[in-house]
Amino acid sequence: MSMRKPLIMLPGPTNVPDRVMRALARPIISHRGKEFEALYESIVENAKYVYQTENDVFPLTASGTGGIECAVSNVVDKGDKVLVPVYGDFSRRIKEKISVYGGIPIEIPIEWGNVPTADQIKETLQRESDIKAVFLVYNETSTGATVRELPEISRVAKEHGALVIVDAISILGGDKLPVDEWKIDICVTGSQKCLACPPGAALVSVSSDAWKKIEGKTVRSFYFDLLRARRFRERRQTPFTPAIPVFFALDEALKMIREEGLEQRFRRHAVCASAFYAAAEALGLEVFPAKEWRSNTVIAIKKPEGISVGDIRKVMENRYGVMVAGGMGKVKEQIIRIGCMGIVSQREVLTTVFALENTLKDLGVKIETGAGVEAAKKAFS
Amino acid sequence: MSMRKPLIMLPGPTNVPDRVMRALARPIISHRGKEFEALYESIVENAKYVYQTENDVFPLTASGTGGIECAVSNVVDKGDKVLVPVYGDFSRRIKEKISVYGGIPIEIPIEWGNVPTADQIKETLQRESDIKAVFLVYNETSTGATVRELPEISRVAKEHGALVIVDAISILGGDKLPVDEWKIDICVTGSQKCLACPPGAALVSVSSDAWKKIEGKTVRSFYFDLLRARRFRERRQTPFTPAIPVFFALDEALKMIREEGLEQRFRRHAVCASAFYAAAEALGLEVFPAKEWRSNTVIAIKKPEGISVGDIRKVMENRYGVMVAGGMGKVKEQIIRIGCMGIVSQREVLTTVFALENTLKDLGVKIETGAGVEAAKKAFS
Repeated sequence: MSMRKPLIMLPGPTNVPDRVMRALARPIISHRGKEFEALYESIVENAKYVYQTENDVFPLTASGTGGIECAVSNVVDKGDKVLVPVYGDFSRRIKEKISVYGGIPIEIPIEWGNVPTADQIKETLQRESDIKAVFLVYNETSTGATVRELPEISRVAKEHGALVIVDAISILGGDKLPVDEWKIDICVTGSQKCLACPPGAALVSVSSDAWKKIEGKTVRSFYFDLLRARRFRERRQTPFTPAIPVFFALDEALKMIREEGLEQRFRRHAVCASAFYAAAEALGLEVFPAKEWRSNTVIAIKKPEGISVGDIRKVMENRYGVMVAGGMGKVKEQIIRIGCMGIVSQREVLTTVFALENTLKDLGVKIETGAGVEAAKKAFS
Repeated sequence: MSMRKPLIMLPGPTNVPDRVMRALARPIISHRGKEFEALYESIVENAKYVYQTENDVFPLTASGTGGIECAVSNVVDKGDKVLVPVYGDFSRRIKEKISVYGGIPIEIPIEWGNVPTADQIKETLQRESDIKAVFLVYNETSTGATVRELPEISRVAKEHGALVIVDAISILGGDKLPVDEWKIDICVTGSQKCLACPPGAALVSVSSDAWKKIEGKTVRSFYFDLLRARRFRERRQTPFTPAIPVFFALDEALKMIREEGLEQRFRRHAVCASAFYAAAEALGLEVFPAKEWRSNTVIAIKKPEGISVGDIRKVMENRYGVMVAGGMGKVKEQIIRIGCMGIVSQREVLTTVFALENTLKDLGVKIETGAGVEAAKKAFS
């Protein structure tokens, strides 16, 4: 066994650049002092750039799931009808959270690997009057499918007077998501995915329409209360002690995104994803989501017959030093998922394809040697 | 201005040893792999040592306030009568949280600087039948007062069939708190206080009586759901992506407590606190809490007449490189608070007393030069 750390190609946490890792170990500062205020301001300003928004953005000390809980607890009132298409494990969780907070989830069940379309959302909004909000997972981490019609869905929802709440945890910073242009009312992400930062922080943007709803309802959480966060924002502080080391790292990670530029960053993710898909096809592997919904940040591939997801993961990690994930929920044993996020580049993609190709060979799957790597290379040329 | 970082003598965050800071920057690992399982196990085992408990202990990705929200949301059912003495800003916040979760807070208002006694609790439990839980802030960070009758209060509460929920955020690991011996049902702490770890994680212990209540009630939070945390504990995992760097640091910080030993650690805190109190008296300063409730971990001292808390803090930090805090809530402008936590030792105490003494002199307060430092030294001899 190598003493070298494996390459992390998980759909989160992802590989973190040294510069961001070093920021973690900066000396602790007071969260009520001037240094923190500058840090807070910097995080918010750069987060707004990544979100492409003029809306308020709040950093939270919580995982991405905590960020979603923040959205649900601030927006969903007891008895509110909330539209929630379910097409994977994370959209299923959101439905559960809506129930926990007393909302009435109006579910659109969708086969895993597919995603909701604007027509489906429109039809449901017309049938079910009085829907207060639409909750969407932009990129279903559990299936590797992206809601490509998000801009149209958002337009339809806003026309019906519903708020648009987007879980962008595994995609923001890795693929197009102009929050203001697409009129997203609340957009949530986590630090440990496309932002290439360690886990421990979430970001939540809030539009003026969302504020209207929040101001008019009963507070349902103390820790996630956005009105309190807004009061403390005036002093560029968080209401409670923040995870200072993670905030330092998040600041550095956001600065790196700004230096690279969003367009270049999205292009890099798209090219890497296309290389993964080309390799999968060259190896005769089936991509899990339908072609039009394939994600640029989470690559989900069906395992070949006759071998197990566990075996693939074990050999890839132990022999080739590359960590990928299996499936979740009902497709747990059927797919492998590869994170194509953050600092991903040609180097990580080729190493991963090489590892996958050889792992399959080692496990007795008939593949053409080098076909995956060749196909991936072509995508980069 | 010095380029050297100031000494952090805040009531949290506190100074973090290098060994713990270095742990922050360890390479990121998967939270669903074997390495994390070992980390989780190690944190829980050492946390149980610090808690002196056989109860379950859960690490959370949240600040201490998030830990309290976890306790409230898991234990307080709609309409539950909950006893909550209020004697500072943190006990006031707990009252607010109980209301947010639909509980009926039965408040015992107590003058700030004082704390509830077993007699007061008993009297209220007898008058108000059907109280489901008693929430206590063991050490009121906002006033520097410790509930010294906590063991008796707990006994009285348990006799009345009420759960005992303790906020030990600014004291656990710095003063006596044998959770099992004192029959504490839920005990919450934060990483950044007496544990001498950076902020970003909370710990919550749960007794079998608390589990009975939790199992019988509706889930009120998804992120803080302890039943979910218990299911994942079986695999030594957290339900959601944890703040891995903070978990690494927490593990190291807990190991350091175990190496020092609880008894020695409590003694060290007590001696340092007595040195602070002796210095305050020698300087003619009034300690804020009543003598019998003085905390060993948060030192609250009234400012002298004629100068402001802000001036004291500014001069102490800018000229002498020592950060202390002002008051909170209604005593904001009346007291300064000094953290006596974590790695505090003779060195930090003497530096702080030296800084305070000279600051007061600089601001025109008549004091005997060296009297504070001399009195503090005596406490260590």
